[in-house]
Amino acid sequence: MLSRKASDHDQQATRRMESPYASHASAVARILKTFIPQDYGLHPLFLLQNFTQMKGCGCKVPRPILLNLLKAFGNIPTMSHDEVGIGLDSCVVPTRHPGLKLVQTTDFFYPLVDDPYIMGRITAANVLSDLYAMGVSECDNMLMLLGVCNDFNDVERDVIVKEFIKGFKDAAAQAGTEVRGGQTVKCPWLLLGGVATSVCTDREILKVDRAKPGDVLILTKPLGGQVSVNSYEWLQTNNGRVKELHLDPKKILRAAQQAMEQMCRLNRNAAILARKYRAHACTDVTGFGILGHADNLARVQRNNVQFVIDSLPVIEYTEEIARAMNGNGFNLFGGTSAETSGGLLLALPEERAEDFRAELESVDGFPTFLIGRVVEAEPGKPNNAEINHRYTVVPVPSQIHSSAIVINQ
Amino acid sequence: MLSRKASDHDQQATRRMESPYASHASAVARILKTFIPQDYGLHPLFLLQNFTQMKGCGCKVPRPILLNLLKAFGNIPTMSHDEVGIGLDSCVVPTRHPGLKLVQTTDFFYPLVDDPYIMGRITAANVLSDLYAMGVSECDNMLMLLGVCNDFNDVERDVIVKEFIKGFKDAAAQAGTEVRGGQTVKCPWLLLGGVATSVCTDREILKVDRAKPGDVLILTKPLGGQVSVNSYEWLQTNNGRVKELHLDPKKILRAAQQAMEQMCRLNRNAAILARKYRAHACTDVTGFGILGHADNLARVQRNNVQFVIDSLPVIEYTEEIARAMNGNGFNLFGGTSAETSGGLLLALPEERAEDFRAELESVDGFPTFLIGRVVEAEPGKPNNAEINHRYTVVPVPSQIHSSAIVINQ
Repeated sequence: MLSRKASDHDQQATRRMESPYASHASAVARILKTFIPQDYGLHPLFLLQNFTQMKGCGCKVPRPILLNLLKAFGNIPTMSHDEVGIGLDSCVVPTRHPGLKLVQTTDFFYPLVDDPYIMGRITAANVLSDLYAMGVSECDNMLMLLGVCNDFNDVERDVIVKEFIKGFKDAAAQAGTEVRGGQTVKCPWLLLGGVATSVCTDREILKVDRAKPGDVLILTKPLGGQVSVNSYEWLQTNNGRVKELHLDPKKILRAAQQAMEQMCRLNRNAAILARKYRAHACTDVTGFGILGHADNLARVQRNNVQFVIDSLPVIEYTEEIARAMNGNGFNLFGGTSAETSGGLLLALPEERAEDFRAELESVDGFPTFLIGRVVEAEPGKPNNAEINHRYTVVPVPSQIHSSAIVINQ
Repeated sequence: MLSRKASDHDQQATRRMESPYASHASAVARILKTFIPQDYGLHPLFLLQNFTQMKGCGCKVPRPILLNLLKAFGNIPTMSHDEVGIGLDSCVVPTRHPGLKLVQTTDFFYPLVDDPYIMGRITAANVLSDLYAMGVSECDNMLMLLGVCNDFNDVERDVIVKEFIKGFKDAAAQAGTEVRGGQTVKCPWLLLGGVATSVCTDREILKVDRAKPGDVLILTKPLGGQVSVNSYEWLQTNNGRVKELHLDPKKILRAAQQAMEQMCRLNRNAAILARKYRAHACTDVTGFGILGHADNLARVQRNNVQFVIDSLPVIEYTEEIARAMNGNGFNLFGGTSAETSGGLLLALPEERAEDFRAELESVDGFPTFLIGRVVEAEPGKPNNAEINHRYTVVPVPSQIHSSAIVINQ
């Protein structure tokens, strides 16, 4: 690998320089400008998503197949009650130094939006999110993983890789960390990913297996990412589906921009506040959708609990798109539609949940959602999550298109 | 990511259980048995290397292009004399905990031999080698990166992924560490990689920028990896080149097995002894070949030095193959032929070099090589490495085919 070494001094300098709020505002400005390939010397029809056949966290190997393959390790996450509570979204490793744990995660996937800079920010935010899902808010180092698509010509390669790196680096800086190494290979598809690592004390890690009946479930970003980025791609490739489904191109663009904003948004403040308000359970919502991740989280709880999802907050217009498709496109209403860099899902006692939400909405400048509750599992039944059959769908309007509202993060 | 959490207890248990010597001997036994696809329910013509068009560390983006792309970071490895000596092969990051550094590396590439189990061992050994090149011998955690080839049928997927995981895991255990997380996606090619991380004190990190005129250059594994694995693939695919070049199939197989053994061999003992004998400079030899890596290492030295390579130890029969090709196949004699999980290249004072070599040969059971010397750079010329125009090629016979010799590692 090629790598660099940072002195303590330049690390501190970075932390001083970057305002997370200004950083996020600049990402939003870029999203609203839209990506014009010609501005970068690319062909007008250049589309980043063409350099893969799978998008974002939707490229995961299906969970049952994956679990079967991982049996080769001999020791799958045991989730015994002694160990659980750490290890759901990142691995937590004792170091040779008393009191210190190594918390580490990696993720890689393929482009799902057109702007390589925004893809860089999304990729970094998505990797970091696995630390944040453990309540770990301080990342000590990031590595960048990059497979450069063989089909790129030289100009494409230079533009895409450089813009991607800028976005990845800016997101790392926003998170108060730096990218100090990585690996770059040639690949048939454009492959994007990273590694995030924290060396931290036990106090910095949230116990995520303490949900109790009576807790409420909070989600920090609306759903519908997969619906919005896919419909945006139909629009960009002019493939006829937008007309066929009688969709409104302007609303599709708006939904895609709303999705891009929230995929760039770090879950870092949510992690800090999850610790401050002593959340009982926490995970982040990505490839398996809200129901998949809620179910995973429910299963590792110490208490006999069921997570019941009563309401599905969705990016505005994604409900209409999903209904137009086949009544339930991407199974959005079944809760398995993939998110990339989705929000945190938390269980909190009701009284602390309102304070958590108020403070997070105040520091990030975006709404959060009360989506369900923790109930006692039926006797003899394993912990699980389900969507209430009388669920409601709640469209969440864009904050970045209504100029009256101030974006904080 | 899916991850697991290890208690201190099970980490210690692993360290007790695994004998590195027995572990390496079992890899060697597997290599000598050769991989028979039918034994695993695969088609007789199944060949792992068909699931990529690039092999091992040969898939790296060419260095000049890479350095240009990385300019987007704004801060390429500066190699100022204050910082250098750490950060050549892994990144070294100050943590928030006094006296502790995070040393971290990642690598991923494509299959280059036919046995998925051996590929797992090679992949892990290759990732770990970047820590070992810094003198860091204790890895605290590994992550596994896997792109599962879309072209696999279900049987192929299950066999290949499971055998790969076993090999990767066994190599990690041999290194005294464990694999506790990773990411698995679908990919057009079979993509194999990992992340290795150590949390360590400054004392555990070798200063690698102290080479002095008068030092000798030691290499711990012979060259010729690319030549041997490629000619072995000609043999396996029956593509006519073996006949055309009048090569001996038996000798090709033997060379490939010798290459596989050394790619599986950890550079860990070499790292421990590099610290013990206070090596002045150290790196590992991978995709850029012996000359490329010697040159990189020379450039970061504090003193004005040139690394002169007088002798090229090569896996037996690779000299003949390279000569048969075009007189210098893969530029083996020019020093840029790629290695995967190659040896360490070290600069040591002459008096300590012999002790280093004797002890490493004794603990690993394989020969090491005095390949050159450090001289003063010509005034006004930047540090570099070169191959003496009167170089000699030294064929290194296989140790694993002559039963009289005991394999130690």
